[in-house]
Amino acid sequence: MAEVAEKKKSGGLAGVIAGDSSICLCGSEEESLLYRGYPIEDLARFASFEETAWLILRGSLPTEKELSDYRVVLKEKRDLPVNLKAILEQIPKDAGMMDVMRTSVSALGHFEPEIEEKGRFDIADKLVSCIGAPLLYWHTLHTKGKRLDLVTQEKNHSGHLLQLILGHEASEEHQRFLDIALILYAEHEFNASTFTVRTIASTLSDFYSAICGGIGALSGPLHGGANEKAIELILKFQSQQEAEQGVLRMLERKELIMGFGHRVYTTRDPRSDIIKDIARKLAEDAGDLETFEIAERIEEVMRREKKLFPNLDFYSALAFRYLGIPTAMFTPIFVMSRIVGWSAHLLEQRQNNKLIRPLSNYTGPKRETWKPIGKRS
Amino acid sequence: MAEVAEKKKSGGLAGVIAGDSSICLCGSEEESLLYRGYPIEDLARFASFEETAWLILRGSLPTEKELSDYRVVLKEKRDLPVNLKAILEQIPKDAGMMDVMRTSVSALGHFEPEIEEKGRFDIADKLVSCIGAPLLYWHTLHTKGKRLDLVTQEKNHSGHLLQLILGHEASEEHQRFLDIALILYAEHEFNASTFTVRTIASTLSDFYSAICGGIGALSGPLHGGANEKAIELILKFQSQQEAEQGVLRMLERKELIMGFGHRVYTTRDPRSDIIKDIARKLAEDAGDLETFEIAERIEEVMRREKKLFPNLDFYSALAFRYLGIPTAMFTPIFVMSRIVGWSAHLLEQRQNNKLIRPLSNYTGPKRETWKPIGKRS
Repeated sequence: MAEVAEKKKSGGLAGVIAGDSSICLCGSEEESLLYRGYPIEDLARFASFEETAWLILRGSLPTEKELSDYRVVLKEKRDLPVNLKAILEQIPKDAGMMDVMRTSVSALGHFEPEIEEKGRFDIADKLVSCIGAPLLYWHTLHTKGKRLDLVTQEKNHSGHLLQLILGHEASEEHQRFLDIALILYAEHEFNASTFTVRTIASTLSDFYSAICGGIGALSGPLHGGANEKAIELILKFQSQQEAEQGVLRMLERKELIMGFGHRVYTTRDPRSDIIKDIARKLAEDAGDLETFEIAERIEEVMRREKKLFPNLDFYSALAFRYLGIPTAMFTPIFVMSRIVGWSAHLLEQRQNNKLIRPLSNYTGPKRETWKPIGKRS
Repeated sequence: MAEVAEKKKSGGLAGVIAGDSSICLCGSEEESLLYRGYPIEDLARFASFEETAWLILRGSLPTEKELSDYRVVLKEKRDLPVNLKAILEQIPKDAGMMDVMRTSVSALGHFEPEIEEKGRFDIADKLVSCIGAPLLYWHTLHTKGKRLDLVTQEKNHSGHLLQLILGHEASEEHQRFLDIALILYAEHEFNASTFTVRTIASTLSDFYSAICGGIGALSGPLHGGANEKAIELILKFQSQQEAEQGVLRMLERKELIMGFGHRVYTTRDPRSDIIKDIARKLAEDAGDLETFEIAERIEEVMRREKKLFPNLDFYSALAFRYLGIPTAMFTPIFVMSRIVGWSAHLLEQRQNNKLIRPLSNYTGPKRETWKPIGKRS
């Protein structure tokens, strides 16, 4: 996520248009973010995650009947094949959570492969519903020694996820806050993971292969890992003053501070105001405004010293923490939301496909004469 | 592999330079192919696969001591963790072979994760040595009902692989032919799978995530699947005349014929002459020149009618068949070789990293006004 503003440097395809897309507009029109034309502010205010997922995947807002049918479909797809659970039981306790997600999606492909008879959206719907389940099954096994029941009666996807994560029902307010966070993370144009998904899809590979690639890309600290780094930073300090001094020292030492700046936005991340509001409300509820104010102080220092603004990852880290989500699960939560955008891009890539195959600028040696092995040094 | 010449169309980053690389030069200088400066013809004539892998990964040809040490390292890394074998035993018989490879690499990451203490080349060496092993373990379990011993005493990597595939020792000549095929497939600049590996690596994600993405991309029929399609085509015909007529009919119906043309080469694929020679020798040994001549006739028709030349995949399909490799294993063999190039590109990407994050050209709706759910139709 921390696609730090670095337009001036060359490379990394910065500023290069790699294809057409009608899914998401970000960065233009006063740093706005639109999903299929709808501003993120309206979606965060009026829509549910399920409604947003439908919009992003199908291209238009669902009717009442479509949305209620979609909720039923997602609810029905919550469980996992028994052999996938057996695979999860072989994965050691110290495995990385994103790696567990990557293996699970890959393995799900063996049991529910993409076949022609399936509807266009079948695998997308399955993954939107259950992509978090294998991780939570594996995690519960290792932390509580029990086999988690993946079928909850929660009406909302966010309530379902919170119940699997926390082991108990969450309040409606907390469900709604996670719902909004999932909306904010659902889609973001040609970021590195989505572009990975499209590149894999462009070989006409299958759905699971493309999503595995997306998870792999998102697991990198320059992409999905920023929210985990952000909370570590915030929790390092006991007071606003300590935060001020600590961040100044980090800047002096040129340490990378995650959760600020963005390669696409230049003055603000429109998602940050929304998640900051939620983080504040959660801090108030928890009677812990001090931590929120430490975060705000870090924001202040970064604006003043580096002219950098918080991106979505900074305050979402705080919000996730107040919701009771373990830090190592922050990037996995990102996956549980971004699976929507990845799936939409994969389907769009297939509609008008062209193999993604760039060239390199060769910087190696000119033609070398063969040296027999005895004559090498 | 069949990156069909389509430079005229836009999109797919065709002709776009996505970064620097000193690993491989292809397409320029009279359609030559150089690995680290060494022409593919010299490597196929003088080098072994192990020597070529060292060259591609480390940047220069190994000394005698380096090569013999490297052979020992690769030999020591042939086995798999017992829990990975348990995972493989949960994967159903009808799973796709490339999917099994994807899951295995992802799962290996849980047992032998990338940690700082490891040497820069440790995981590359492990994967070069054992990336084929999980597939062959799983395949033998389902076809012969037995747990394959993955540790053979074969000196050469190609001999080791042939023994695991065939269940018995292969002749020295056959080992050398597979060795050369592995050399030809080992590296090819910014093709779709290698570019996927680099994109994932650019988020500073781990080795296994990047390679999983590469496998996923290679599994697509527009990339790695071409050699499997090529053998299906060749075996469809009983005679040269039938082949002539059959291919003409396919061209009339505008059916895609795999194994011809290339996005980077315009007049010839320098690897094709080498593999064609091997296919001819193997056909002679097998006393089956007829099949080879059918393939040659297809080549002739494609040159005459479409001005397209065979790429590496066309005759390698025939060579693999004569070596006794099952058709569904052709693309996996490609993985067992290309793991070298992928690993080299991943390490190169890390040396001078910049997040790969292009932009899209937005073709969606302008800003939409929110519609309450009751008012949608």
